[in-house]
Amino acid sequence: MYSIDLNCDMGESFGAYTIGRDEEILDYITSANIACGFHAGDPSTMRKTVKMALEKNVAIGAHPGFQDLVGFGRREVSITPIEAYDIVLYQIGALSAFVRAEGGNIQHVKPHGALYNMAAKSSDLSEAIAEAIYKIDPTMILFGLAGSKLVEAGRTIGLRTANEVFADRTYQLDGSLTSRREGNAHISDQETAVSQVIRMVKEGKVRSVQGEDVSITAQTVCIHGDGDHALDFARYIKTALKDAGITIAKISESLTK
Amino acid sequence: MYSIDLNCDMGESFGAYTIGRDEEILDYITSANIACGFHAGDPSTMRKTVKMALEKNVAIGAHPGFQDLVGFGRREVSITPIEAYDIVLYQIGALSAFVRAEGGNIQHVKPHGALYNMAAKSSDLSEAIAEAIYKIDPTMILFGLAGSKLVEAGRTIGLRTANEVFADRTYQLDGSLTSRREGNAHISDQETAVSQVIRMVKEGKVRSVQGEDVSITAQTVCIHGDGDHALDFARYIKTALKDAGITIAKISESLTK
Amino acid sequence: MYSIDLNCDMGESFGAYTIGRDEEILDYITSANIACGFHAGDPSTMRKTVKMALEKNVAIGAHPGFQDLVGFGRREVSITPIEAYDIVLYQIGALSAFVRAEGGNIQHVKPHGALYNMAAKSSDLSEAIAEAIYKIDPTMILFGLAGSKLVEAGRTIGLRTANEVFADRTYQLDGSLTSRREGNAHISDQETAVSQVIRMVKEGKVRSVQGEDVSITAQTVCIHGDGDHALDFARYIKTALKDAGITIAKISESLTK
Amino acid sequence: MYSIDLNCDMGESFGAYTIGRDEEILDYITSANIACGFHAGDPSTMRKTVKMALEKNVAIGAHPGFQDLVGFGRREVSITPIEAYDIVLYQIGALSAFVRAEGGNIQHVKPHGALYNMAAKSSDLSEAIAEAIYKIDPTMILFGLAGSKLVEAGRTIGLRTANEVFADRTYQLDGSLTSRREGNAHISDQETAVSQVIRMVKEGKVRSVQGEDVSITAQTVCIHGDGDHALDFARYIKTALKDAGITIAKISESLTK
Repeated sequence: MYSIDLNCDMGESFGAYTIGRDEEILDYITSANIACGFHAGDPSTMRKTVKMALEKNVAIGAHPGFQDLVGFGRREVSITPIEAYDIVLYQIGALSAFVRAEGGNIQHVKPHGALYNMAAKSSDLSEAIAEAIYKIDPTMILFGLAGSKLVEAGRTIGLRTANEVFADRTYQLDGSLTSRREGNAHISDQETAVSQVIRMVKEGKVRSVQGEDVSITAQTVCIHGDGDHALDFARYIKTALKDAGITIAKISESLTK
Repeated sequence: MYSIDLNCDMGESFGAYTIGRDEEILDYITSANIACGFHAGDPSTMRKTVKMALEKNVAIGAHPGFQDLVGFGRREVSITPIEAYDIVLYQIGALSAFVRAEGGNIQHVKPHGALYNMAAKSSDLSEAIAEAIYKIDPTMILFGLAGSKLVEAGRTIGLRTANEVFADRTYQLDGSLTSRREGNAHISDQETAVSQVIRMVKEGKVRSVQGEDVSITAQTVCIHGDGDHALDFARYIKTALKDAGITIAKISESLTK
Repeated sequence: MYSIDLNCDMGESFGAYTIGRDEEILDYITSANIACGFHAGDPSTMRKTVKMALEKNVAIGAHPGFQDLVGFGRREVSITPIEAYDIVLYQIGALSAFVRAEGGNIQHVKPHGALYNMAAKSSDLSEAIAEAIYKIDPTMILFGLAGSKLVEAGRTIGLRTANEVFADRTYQLDGSLTSRREGNAHISDQETAVSQVIRMVKEGKVRSVQGEDVSITAQTVCIHGDGDHALDFARYIKTALKDAGITIAKISESLTK
Repeated sequence: MYSIDLNCDMGESFGAYTIGRDEEILDYITSANIACGFHAGDPSTMRKTVKMALEKNVAIGAHPGFQDLVGFGRREVSITPIEAYDIVLYQIGALSAFVRAEGGNIQHVKPHGALYNMAAKSSDLSEAIAEAIYKIDPTMILFGLAGSKLVEAGRTIGLRTANEVFADRTYQLDGSLTSRREGNAHISDQETAVSQVIRMVKEGKVRSVQGEDVSITAQTVCIHGDGDHALDFARYIKTALKDAGITIAKISESLTK
């Protein structure tokens, strides 16, 4: 009855540099957001990551970001909407080549880091990103922050969309994430984090830091792939969600157009 | 009865930097090799160039090169075959996104600069490049130096191929181009250059610098898009070839699988 | 009695790409802001530009920018002050190697594009930039928008500073430049542009777009090196300023600590 | 009586990516080769690495490489000598800014990876690299493969040089390293590796894979900073060399002009 997708950023290694425990984390997620060479990733890493995801039957998504490797795509760049359209189209195309070569297909697109955050608040950027996706393949699903401009732009142009929620972040009264600059932005306790997700899935609500409930749609949960506790938490949340009677499935299996 | 394709590298501008008189040169050619953001080009330039080519009914090709913008892809990089496979696949994919978004399709792939030259002599690199193209779309045509390993690898894997000849370069007895380091590498006289092409097309022969004829297959001629005389020469060769009774047509129209 | 420095951005070519008429513009200016390989420029261009400036007795300045070649350093990037410190220090160092190798010295530092504009309004960024310059060589002169946070930060740390004014831009009542998004941001008439500069130099005032005079300190004027009219205007303003009795001299010759 | 320098590549992290256990390895070496942002490293990493080296009283060297981050500077690029001059000068300058800002000075320069290997065999490249170093500061010491063209070029132009040897690599009869493509290129046994170094230092000889002794000058030994056994081996060799009566000291302390 209840269903949720678990997604994780991956393929973010670069040349001699390794980040993330991609191979292991793939055992716990249903959708992989694969970096496309701009904020992270390189052609060889993309090929290997696509292969691994297909072997483990995890749905593949493009994870386009700013061309800012040294900043890992986390710094805002004041791009225009048409520049956003261009860099998103370019990166989806690059990834799709590896996916086609391996016989798979791209399920979704999730912008990365600062591009994701900027789009969440900007209709102009979101419309440009949604248009890029729609033009290359209108069957792709757009991942965006739950209730954001990005999800709205995707729906408006005719894309299927997935509202993304975070287990380990707190929410504001308006449904936005608490800024990382605030002391109470993160939820470090695993049980609290998972309880938040279960409630979002089952009740469509989250308790804001202001103490009042906020309505939220939870279709996919962001899981982290790097850091000491990444695997532990992935294992924990997967089990806990199942125990709570929530089906874990690729977003494409639960969404209808 | 005789048919030839005229190709030109384009879309090599980058950000604030402009190279090539793309819009004008498109009036004289049948196939455009569009840079894919590694040795030259950027996402916005790719979008604009694809649009222009489609508007002028010029066939689109991917023009992948080394990720060496400062060297414009002209410096050899000691990559492995799998690295060649990866960078070619990535770049074709990136371009194909813009082509699909604009409703067109990619006719061909022509490696750029040092990658083209290295592949001409290396079976390993050529096989990797041919495999990348074949895997993403086996109907694409592979452009390579006439008689080179690249054309051979394309044919072997089952791709249609186009033997490329040069109007303004001299040839060695073994059918290879005279090295640019040699004084007699270039043909500056327009009439001599065009006569060489006409003979290659009609007789399948070229006079080598050693004075003897060499057999050569001419299916597409490389036209330059930059420099003061680029447009003049493009206009001149197009007229001269027509006057010699040679049909100028996209390679995809003259090739059968 | 009146003295002014004329500065121009240069060395912004990159690999096979050429921008700016550097060699010619050097005949009209006293200070050259040389790109350092991040927003534009490459090691070979830096060497050639440094040599040309020394040969023409034009003072050399470092022109550090964001590492955003495709955006030519014109897009804002949300960097932290310590990141600003690091990229400025890096770029000054890189340029200083070429200057030392050719037997010259760096007179000044002028941040480029979006970094210049962001610093103008941010004390934090400006202090970081000023500290980088001070630490590598406290005798260098910091160029900033007249009356900006950047000039202020330079003075506070103990650097000599130069207030920069623009001939072809209009000013607001608070002394800031009219945003380029406004229709009246630019002054296209050469005579009006030069008259504005003469009045800034002699009277320390500029007429704002709101119609009232604003106090302004003019120590160096930004001259453009690219575009069809760049050379014409450089020639024109140099002559007009001289005719108005204003000495044109390197900023280091008129500034005392 | 016997003295040796121990050097290690470091500062090769990049943005969010970490490589090498720099802080710990600094306890065992006397000279640090700090990456300069081309093959690895970024401005912030350079600042931090310079600070750590100074705090631990380890001599600082510039470690310039090819601008090929994805290849980690390990792929040969067919650059010209003047291009080598330019990229070496640029990178030394960039590092020297951080070193000056922290109150230190650069002891040496060691080219990285493919640039090091290409220079070892090419007089043209070596002369260009030596000239770049000499022009920016003739008191810097040039590190090169023992007996290579690079050491020769440094000596010829008037630089102090250091012949570098490897503990974990085997040697050919001509004094060159056995290619990594060969099965017997590496020495994995720690005791054998250290014995090889001790003999090179004390006797000036190394047993080639062909079974005959070769004369070799050992002034600095390359220690690796990455991998599971890096720290173990660093600790082991340092102790073993001391036990063998060899003083471990910065190269600048044992070299006289």
